Amino acid sequence: MKKNAFFTPIATAILLVAAGVALAQEPVEPISPVKEVNLGKVELGKKLYFDPRLSKSGFISCNSCHNLSMGGTDNLKTSIGHKWQQGPINSPTVLNSSLNVAQFWDGRAADLKAQAGGPIANPGEMAFTHTLAVDMLETIPEYVIEFKLVFGKALIDIDQVTDAIAEFEKTLVTPNSRFDHWLLGETDAITAEELGGYQLFKLSGCIACHNGSSLGGTSFQKMGIVEPYQTANTAQGLIAVTGKDADRFKFKVPTLRNVALTYPYFHDGEAATLSHAVDIMGRLQLGKQFTPQENAQIVAFLKTLTGDQPLFDLPMLPPSTDKTPKPTPFD
Amino acid sequence: MKKNAFFTPIATAILLVAAGVALAQEPVEPISPVKEVNLGKVELGKKLYFDPRLSKSGFISCNSCHNLSMGGTDNLKTSIGHKWQQGPINSPTVLNSSLNVAQFWDGRAADLKAQAGGPIANPGEMAFTHTLAVDMLETIPEYVIEFKLVFGKALIDIDQVTDAIAEFEKTLVTPNSRFDHWLLGETDAITAEELGGYQLFKLSGCIACHNGSSLGGTSFQKMGIVEPYQTANTAQGLIAVTGKDADRFKFKVPTLRNVALTYPYFHDGEAATLSHAVDIMGRLQLGKQFTPQENAQIVAFLKTLTGDQPLFDLPMLPPSTDKTPKPTPFD
Repeated sequence: MKKNAFFTPIATAILLVAAGVALAQEPVEPISPVKEVNLGKVELGKKLYFDPRLSKSGFISCNSCHNLSMGGTDNLKTSIGHKWQQGPINSPTVLNSSLNVAQFWDGRAADLKAQAGGPIANPGEMAFTHTLAVDMLETIPEYVIEFKLVFGKALIDIDQVTDAIAEFEKTLVTPNSRFDHWLLGETDAITAEELGGYQLFKLSGCIACHNGSSLGGTSFQKMGIVEPYQTANTAQGLIAVTGKDADRFKFKVPTLRNVALTYPYFHDGEAATLSHAVDIMGRLQLGKQFTPQENAQIVAFLKTLTGDQPLFDLPMLPPSTDKTPKPTPFD
Repeated sequence: MKKNAFFTPIATAILLVAAGVALAQEPVEPISPVKEVNLGKVELGKKLYFDPRLSKSGFISCNSCHNLSMGGTDNLKTSIGHKWQQGPINSPTVLNSSLNVAQFWDGRAADLKAQAGGPIANPGEMAFTHTLAVDMLETIPEYVIEFKLVFGKALIDIDQVTDAIAEFEKTLVTPNSRFDHWLLGETDAITAEELGGYQLFKLSGCIACHNGSSLGGTSFQKMGIVEPYQTANTAQGLIAVTGKDADRFKFKVPTLRNVALTYPYFHDGEAATLSHAVDIMGRLQLGKQFTPQENAQIVAFLKTLTGDQPLFDLPMLPPSTDKTPKPTPFD
């Protein structure tokens, strides 16, 4: 009875406060559920995200390469674009992308809204134009009404399109991972092996770049600090945006949230497995050769970062009308 | 009061019986909700239906060409296959396909199970093989467990894969259209214009082929009876299955359920609009030139055939493992 008496409500409260202090000291914070969102934009943006009519072919939607059944990625080294063009870079996950400091591997879009317009008009991706996309939407009465309802304007424009898609993407956060349970004080939410992996992750220096609620996404770092990274991929990273030579091969540090779902890894997609990715990161970025046991521990930790995947009904797209321009996949 | 007295419960019952008799006399029956289904197979089949890893590229799933956000079709003249190959024929809707007498435009698959294996192994579609598909699934523990749970066998085989997909497809019926409400006695469920269209549809002879609960799907008919159909498409129809010269250009009569969503029309996808399709059908199959008013009436009727679209959560696919063979989209 005396032993149990320790677990009084007051003692429990003290324990929780202690856990809170511990939490505050961790360099990783839990993913928060979305706190403020415009549901009208979200529902409209969800339809647009799944609508292949935003592509020239009528075949490729945002969800083609950022597939929400597959961790918000296509699980390919580099993506497939219009007419099966091979994309230049690995599709980053859309999950938790609202938490990124900027969008794309080279950060060339300041936010999700700026990003959303890119692939639509990229000749190697959806190969459409903003004008054609808006013209198409204007021929579909259900879209016209929904845009009016949500934005209150007479005409649809590309700003509204990307704004709605970005608002939907804001909802694609993945709270509730086992690691977040641990961060919030549920000490048995992860195993000793996984906790060991987290400690190693911190001690080895991975945490220097992969920190914050996304374990990444907040800075640009050179790929290949200690040793140069060997790749046939021609992407140059941040230099494309800043023009500064010092930014060559600097890429946005990818989030490690849901990393067990977002294979293959790196901007070139050349690391097929987590184990391989951890090994390369250790050697090239930190000058560390992890032992097989250390590697396995870190991988075990990384697998605790899979959160609740966004769950929603497959959206139904409003049908085209006789006036809607036809897709031209083979022109 | 006397007038209202007519609508007593007994009188209403008599009216409903009368409606029942009328219903029995119509050559179209309402779509029934699914009556018997194996939910384990359905949930497994739903994942497989959305899983692009059943294709060589890792990019094309059943849902790519039979998109359940878009009436179970791709809304393209002919489909896009592996490496952007142009398909030979229009993708028929998967909606209500369980009610078809056979599958594919030429009926070469006896049922949905036989159909499901086709595209996976077709070099112009998903370009995989049944063996590679099964080998891939065997490397994913969550699939292995789910197949065991559902089928109770030690190993996955292609029969289980197609069986599960077919069971999911059995759920893709679309009851509850406005026309079905009318068939079931809700007399104001369709307008006078729409009812006029239905009467014209029957009187003109459309109903000879487009009858039953699917308004089609139950017979093979020659495309171009009164006048030959002109097309650049090389599909020959039923002759490919029977070898009989009389079956040249005979195609399965498509369902008209959800036809407002399943544009473009005909086996070659050459009719972009319902109005155009009705005009051609009238002239080539029935020797009738519908007036613009008649055409509009029939089109109005056809638009009452859109039923409840299947509503379900976007499925989450179990992740690949280090052992899972990698997709090879560009080989």
